[in-house]
Amino acid sequence: MSRRVDYPMIDNANIAYYPRIYDLAHRFFEECWEPMVGKSYPEMINQLKIGFPVVNIETDFHLPIRYGDIITAKISIAKVGGKSCTWDYQMYNQNQQLLWTSKQVTVCVSMDTLQPMELPDWIRDGLSKHMS
Amino acid sequence: MSRRVDYPMIDNANIAYYPRIYDLAHRFFEECWEPMVGKSYPEMINQLKIGFPVVNIETDFHLPIRYGDIITAKISIAKVGGKSCTWDYQMYNQNQQLLWTSKQVTVCVSMDTLQPMELPDWIRDGLSKHMS
Amino acid sequence: MSRRVDYPMIDNANIAYYPRIYDLAHRFFEECWEPMVGKSYPEMINQLKIGFPVVNIETDFHLPIRYGDIITAKISIAKVGGKSCTWDYQMYNQNQQLLWTSKQVTVCVSMDTLQPMELPDWIRDGLSKHMS
Amino acid sequence: MSRRVDYPMIDNANIAYYPRIYDLAHRFFEECWEPMVGKSYPEMINQLKIGFPVVNIETDFHLPIRYGDIITAKISIAKVGGKSCTWDYQMYNQNQQLLWTSKQVTVCVSMDTLQPMELPDWIRDGLSKHMS
Repeated sequence: MSRRVDYPMIDNANIAYYPRIYDLAHRFFEECWEPMVGKSYPEMINQLKIGFPVVNIETDFHLPIRYGDIITAKISIAKVGGKSCTWDYQMYNQNQQLLWTSKQVTVCVSMDTLQPMELPDWIRDGLSKHMS
Repeated sequence: MSRRVDYPMIDNANIAYYPRIYDLAHRFFEECWEPMVGKSYPEMINQLKIGFPVVNIETDFHLPIRYGDIITAKISIAKVGGKSCTWDYQMYNQNQQLLWTSKQVTVCVSMDTLQPMELPDWIRDGLSKHMS
Repeated sequence: MSRRVDYPMIDNANIAYYPRIYDLAHRFFEECWEPMVGKSYPEMINQLKIGFPVVNIETDFHLPIRYGDIITAKISIAKVGGKSCTWDYQMYNQNQQLLWTSKQVTVCVSMDTLQPMELPDWIRDGLSKHMS
Repeated sequence: MSRRVDYPMIDNANIAYYPRIYDLAHRFFEECWEPMVGKSYPEMINQLKIGFPVVNIETDFHLPIRYGDIITAKISIAKVGGKSCTWDYQMYNQNQQLLWTSKQVTVCVSMDTLQPMELPDWIRDGLSKHMS
């Protein structure tokens, strides 16, 4: 999946302000759901009331992200647990330089209560097909 | 031009937080430059050091923008002045409902000094071909 | 009310990216509720389920907002209608220079249905005491 | 240092969208500079042309951050290296519940070149007085 770095991501050093790289990662994360498990993330949130808030993050910022870069994200699943799953992110620029890697543990919750819940089988199956 | 409404745009009423609609409009605005005048906005900013900050805005919010909506923006030029130009924005959802209209006056400035400058002819020509 | 301009507001021209000025205005707007009507905006939204989405905006950007500026906002009520009220914003920097003025019409809605509702009397009374 | 959770931080589950917690952390980080080393971060960036981009982050999200919470941040320095320093963040809510911890390695760079540079002595001295 690819996206262009838009102007709002950039700070006054002309590189991406780092919280907005997480925001970009979340936008890629959202796009994963339809190809991975067959439901869009808006359907997950709005109709099924299931969400995946993050509880742990480890990130390396290898190189700055610059205005006008075309970012390609490679996203895979590192681990599927009972109520959680772990995502691996890699972002590259248009020159195939590795810019950013992040491992993120997300917990499956009911959006009504924010309480953790067992991963439904159809989600577990979809995610398991995209293990790194 | 179309974009999906991503999760970060949404507030706790499940509709777009209005400053982020301006942010979305700016992302569409950036995409206009290559088709309209033949230079991308990153080239304008980074190489040519020309920018177009906004100085006046009038906006009507007709209907809420919701998570998962596919927003289509129609952007045209309402007026080209000596050092400024005026943009007309219309945003529609996937049901062709008009959600948002905005008229925005932008001034042509040198990015080094932020001082207004005459619109270069090639920019004026490109913008003039997209008058509403 | 005053706030410092934080780094995330700034773009690569070292001035505030304009959608984030609206975001700053909204943060000031939120702070108005307790002094104006005696309830904080979180109480309004979370407990009373009443919100005030904006439906019309007119803004002039007089001077750029720069990193490190201390912004003072003067906010008053221009008009109180049956289901709506109109806000006047003025932002000044630490040198008493007028940077930004905006007139914003907001509609009173139920946060459960997003349908417009009559302004409750206690809100109307509070707002009416702060007419410009 | 304390800040109120403003409306723009909140997502449609009524909790803070996680990239905006990093944004909040950065706003606290900026406020550290004047008390820790005697220069404000705007002075560092604008006049001295020295910045501290982050290169590694480890974060635990213990509890959700909710709208209206008053967040207190405790920030200390875990390590001072030749060209880098490591920050420890803890965020608590108004009930003294630990919400968020993060360890962040930042590199000292020239803002003109984005190249790493030795920590100036006066910065090293100031940071070293705030070791955890």
